[in-house]
Amino acid sequence: MLSEKSVRLGTARSVIRELFEYGKSRAAIVGAENVFDFSIGNPSVSPPAEVNAAAIRLLSESDPVAMHGYTSAQGDPAARKMLADSLNRRFSAGASPDDIYIATGAAGALCGCLHGLACEGDEFVVFAPYFPEYKVFIEKTGSAMRLIPPDIENFQIDFDALSLALNPRTKAVIVNSPNNPSGAVYSEETVKKLADLLSERSAQYGHPIYIISDEPYREIVYEGFSVPWIPAFYPYTIVCYSFSKSLSVPGERLGYVFVPQSANRDEPVYAAVAGALRSLGYVSAPSLFQRVCAECADLTADISVYAENRRLLLDGLRSCGFECVEPGGTFYLFPRTLEPDDIAFCEKAKSLDLLIVPGSGFGCPGHVRISYCVPTDRIRRALPAFAKLAELCRAK
Amino acid sequence: MLSEKSVRLGTARSVIRELFEYGKSRAAIVGAENVFDFSIGNPSVSPPAEVNAAAIRLLSESDPVAMHGYTSAQGDPAARKMLADSLNRRFSAGASPDDIYIATGAAGALCGCLHGLACEGDEFVVFAPYFPEYKVFIEKTGSAMRLIPPDIENFQIDFDALSLALNPRTKAVIVNSPNNPSGAVYSEETVKKLADLLSERSAQYGHPIYIISDEPYREIVYEGFSVPWIPAFYPYTIVCYSFSKSLSVPGERLGYVFVPQSANRDEPVYAAVAGALRSLGYVSAPSLFQRVCAECADLTADISVYAENRRLLLDGLRSCGFECVEPGGTFYLFPRTLEPDDIAFCEKAKSLDLLIVPGSGFGCPGHVRISYCVPTDRIRRALPAFAKLAELCRAK
Repeated sequence: MLSEKSVRLGTARSVIRELFEYGKSRAAIVGAENVFDFSIGNPSVSPPAEVNAAAIRLLSESDPVAMHGYTSAQGDPAARKMLADSLNRRFSAGASPDDIYIATGAAGALCGCLHGLACEGDEFVVFAPYFPEYKVFIEKTGSAMRLIPPDIENFQIDFDALSLALNPRTKAVIVNSPNNPSGAVYSEETVKKLADLLSERSAQYGHPIYIISDEPYREIVYEGFSVPWIPAFYPYTIVCYSFSKSLSVPGERLGYVFVPQSANRDEPVYAAVAGALRSLGYVSAPSLFQRVCAECADLTADISVYAENRRLLLDGLRSCGFECVEPGGTFYLFPRTLEPDDIAFCEKAKSLDLLIVPGSGFGCPGHVRISYCVPTDRIRRALPAFAKLAELCRAK
Repeated sequence: MLSEKSVRLGTARSVIRELFEYGKSRAAIVGAENVFDFSIGNPSVSPPAEVNAAAIRLLSESDPVAMHGYTSAQGDPAARKMLADSLNRRFSAGASPDDIYIATGAAGALCGCLHGLACEGDEFVVFAPYFPEYKVFIEKTGSAMRLIPPDIENFQIDFDALSLALNPRTKAVIVNSPNNPSGAVYSEETVKKLADLLSERSAQYGHPIYIISDEPYREIVYEGFSVPWIPAFYPYTIVCYSFSKSLSVPGERLGYVFVPQSANRDEPVYAAVAGALRSLGYVSAPSLFQRVCAECADLTADISVYAENRRLLLDGLRSCGFECVEPGGTFYLFPRTLEPDDIAFCEKAKSLDLLIVPGSGFGCPGHVRISYCVPTDRIRRALPAFAKLAELCRAK
């Protein structure tokens, strides 16, 4: 008599959350220093000092009625201007404040786009490995998720599979680069090929196929890699951004949707996003942090910590026999498991108090996600356990 | 090719927002002091000083990674405990922290409940006059809104009409007391009668009919009135609360859902709300303000300002011939218009630079909503314009 799907979603804990809770209870038994939890993607580096400084200044100096009052639904105009200016400075994005819709995190941004775009019978394309909530969000619109199998050689795009999957019901393709869980960054070549294919099919089907570019990890990228600005390659791109990872403020729920004029040209995409968010109860994004994040839009937390963790973990794993595509961004490694069954492999790891997440949940069996947004020391102390895990697998 | 409904919702401005924007442009011409804007329900009284003090202390003294990090989806456990304690202190609510789901404002809370409860073919009952977004939120679930005509004598409930409207497809009844726009507070007698009728019908239909009690104005209530705690009268009550009005922080998007054990007994309502919010992209409520609002849960902004405004406006309007049910709460008056057509009446008011909202938009023609969350001085200066408006109507 209730929404069955909602009850199921509200009852079942995700695999990741399950592991995380296990880690906490296990720590109570064997001591926190003996549990090596690499399950959760919660930023471990402090926000830049400017975040709290801006918040305290705004709280101390602004009229509190205005600061905590309703902003317009799409966000405070001055904050939207700062965000547009930042995009223009960094990507020559041609953004005006009216192209920006400040959203309640990337999840809010994404749901606004999906519900705004979705018509009956539509399909949304997702590339494996993928963030599992995409499926939940897409199916809530009544649309179907069309999953493209992973390109496990380098975690770019399997264009043959994509080419077969596209069809007149395809409304949009979700791109997540840098990618959770693989850490892969799409190359300019990949983005160009994707743009060409989608342009061709949009023309063929007589309607735009949108790219929804989900970019919460845009700023978390390492030496030798750079993240192409997709709207420069494909006009029908809608950008979903979040400050959760770049500023280490995931709890504050602040992000935005950027609808370039080129994406709004054929159809009123911005209005559809606005209307969808309204119907979902998103009155506006939180007002204080609209201003805080806009002021800090060009900053990031100290990601050199993640860079060090990445190098340490990647070298350590490779030296004990793991194969891993060099990740260009995020704070995840996604190596192959040392036995085909990734769930069994993760159980074996768990017996060594190594908490890592099976790739199956991300649509990519035979792999494992290791979150390295953890204290560097934890990685150092965990490396012997990874070596032991490798031994266990070889012994079998 | 986009969601038509979303485009429409994102394009059409609400009547209220339209008037508000008109007021701003008109002020630029005739001077702000000559425009009497009573259109918007944005709190005009500062938050209690404790709100900013708590925020600044938490920002200064807490570990920023924890303070701005993800909380669990249902909210920080310590904050939920404070909220449960506050309900228990004030209403003997029997609340445990696990009955509280901290939500992104009342709109988020409400959408979580509606999507969690709604099954195909369900109906949700709403009493006129009503907050117009209810219709938007209900229809987004795929369910139908069943509107009960207003009891314009005292803005309680027309039980004959309700009795006829209830049927086996009724999933829930939305109660909004104190009411936006009428200001009415349901009496204990009304609540008891409602509880009796719904108990009887729940038994008859073989499934609970829930009350969704939307209570953002619970704290804004005047001498001689008190707001019955509905869960004490009816077991299947789900409470949706917001700190927007009580603490004057509507932009910060902080509220909660309280599912008493009695409402969770027959069906897993709490899990359904949790799952619905997850599928709508509500990862969690904003983390800093979860703590701030929980700490300040027993406080309110200085509502004596609203009390003074209410008295001044009510006396002023009555003395020039308006009929108005004495409102027990909120910061709205909802008098009858002095001519039957409330839209024409509001146009006439507009010609005198009096900006007030037609009752038609709230499902109650022949009335007008006057928001008195404005500087008291604006009311004093507007009274002659109301007198002139009354004259104009009599002259006709």
